[in-house]
Amino acid sequence: MRICIVGCGAVGSLFAANLAQLDDVEVWAYDLNQAHVDAINERGLRLVGAGEVIGRPSATSDAASLPPCDFGIVVTKTMHAEAAIAATAHAFADGAVASVMNGVGNEETLARHVARVIRGTTFPAGKLLEPGVVQWDVKGDTTFSPFEPAPASLDEVARLAEACTRAGMPAHAVADARPAQWRKVIFNASTNPIGALTGLSHGRVCERPDLRALVSALVAEGTAVAAAQGITLDADPEELIDHAARPDVAYGHKASMLQDVEARRQTEIDFLNGGIARFGRELGVPTPLNDTITALIKGVEASWT
Amino acid sequence: MRICIVGCGAVGSLFAANLAQLDDVEVWAYDLNQAHVDAINERGLRLVGAGEVIGRPSATSDAASLPPCDFGIVVTKTMHAEAAIAATAHAFADGAVASVMNGVGNEETLARHVARVIRGTTFPAGKLLEPGVVQWDVKGDTTFSPFEPAPASLDEVARLAEACTRAGMPAHAVADARPAQWRKVIFNASTNPIGALTGLSHGRVCERPDLRALVSALVAEGTAVAAAQGITLDADPEELIDHAARPDVAYGHKASMLQDVEARRQTEIDFLNGGIARFGRELGVPTPLNDTITALIKGVEASWT
Repeated sequence: MRICIVGCGAVGSLFAANLAQLDDVEVWAYDLNQAHVDAINERGLRLVGAGEVIGRPSATSDAASLPPCDFGIVVTKTMHAEAAIAATAHAFADGAVASVMNGVGNEETLARHVARVIRGTTFPAGKLLEPGVVQWDVKGDTTFSPFEPAPASLDEVARLAEACTRAGMPAHAVADARPAQWRKVIFNASTNPIGALTGLSHGRVCERPDLRALVSALVAEGTAVAAAQGITLDADPEELIDHAARPDVAYGHKASMLQDVEARRQTEIDFLNGGIARFGRELGVPTPLNDTITALIKGVEASWT
Repeated sequence: MRICIVGCGAVGSLFAANLAQLDDVEVWAYDLNQAHVDAINERGLRLVGAGEVIGRPSATSDAASLPPCDFGIVVTKTMHAEAAIAATAHAFADGAVASVMNGVGNEETLARHVARVIRGTTFPAGKLLEPGVVQWDVKGDTTFSPFEPAPASLDEVARLAEACTRAGMPAHAVADARPAQWRKVIFNASTNPIGALTGLSHGRVCERPDLRALVSALVAEGTAVAAAQGITLDADPEELIDHAARPDVAYGHKASMLQDVEARRQTEIDFLNGGIARFGRELGVPTPLNDTITALIKGVEASWT
């Protein structure tokens, strides 16, 4: 089986290095960071932290050089997904392509370029330490299902999940990954931008009653948009939010969007709160608070230029 | 007539220096900035910019030294009004005290300490350049009326307005200053914190359709809270907002709250969006967006500690 990781940043590298451990899987890694590509090809792709792994995928920044693949796993930043799948789609003419990106709306992007799409959501996290070396911060599960409008077969989804699981990245093939995906997007959209706008850690956001109430109001809007699609979340985002606020979990965690804002990097707001609001508009579910947060974060981004 | 300016910062200095031009008015200036007080007593209080004036009020940081006054004009930052009127109330045992502070809820603060209160709202603006010297940026009118629950007499209100007008600070005595006051607070609350949260100038906020829509939604909430009190605004905040966004008016203006946030100074949010939300709660008018903006700005303030 040949799998291409499209976007071999932190999370993409977790998939690439682990899958490259398997004898029966040939792994390609497509990424535009040439120094990272070169390091992988010269010295292998090394994970440190939650797991110590060295994998030897074939890395390239040249999409044309990719061979035909059975599977793609796209894990670029959401705003780069369109360009990445447009460049690599030829490699998946006979394959199925999964998204494990943040937010909602990514599968729709993939389906504009490839025929068979796998919906996915993943919880492992990490960061690129240097070219070829990735810190594996958090282990976690991945959930895959056929993407309804342009589905891969359940058999294909199961094969991909089985390979990931065997490689040390536990993955579940299910009929519908939306409950897990929407739980994650609602969690992220209700907490991440509040940290980004205020500069407060997750725990400090949660201990302020006014901000905690805002978080709950955002959760309620997101849950209503999910419900309008017939999705019942697989866990209550409120419990996850309170759990993460504990001092022994992630009280002091700076949301990734706060890190983006501090570094003046474009955020993924369009696929988090903006994605929830877009689905809400299509479904006739009002999302005034998600609209507000989206507009404010996009205003912050605009202030840098 | 003896008038005490309580809080002789930028706007207070405009009142103090101009009123001190009048032969029949004795002006006192109470302020806790000792360097400013000393400079005023040594060299007078000098205005430059929109008007060139030197006034010689009696300045003090010692509330006990204030003589009995016919009028007070309180123009501290809103969050310092309670302490300032508590300290100076003895001087107004037989006088009437006006607020010309930003936002709503300030007259209520004064009425907890003095018997006769004048509602007021003022548009002139300036900034303290150095002790004893204030830049007069913008001229503008002031509107006074009796504060309904603890009213000064209409005659007193007219005497104060007449003195201000004669001194070069045009003021109107009206039966109800709330239409002007709520127009100003709605304008400020709908634009100031959006600049503060995004870092954008007034004009750049207004040229982004998503943020301009948020501004309008905030205006609508504030207008509903005013309407629930029977207040019809004296001008449409939307027109003022669009007017201010013009390149020849205030396109590049950084909202004062953005300046506060950049300098990590406590903002007046509790009396702007927070004040609108508080009145809304009392009147049963929902203000979810003003609640959201208030919580975010207070979160920003909390992030500094």
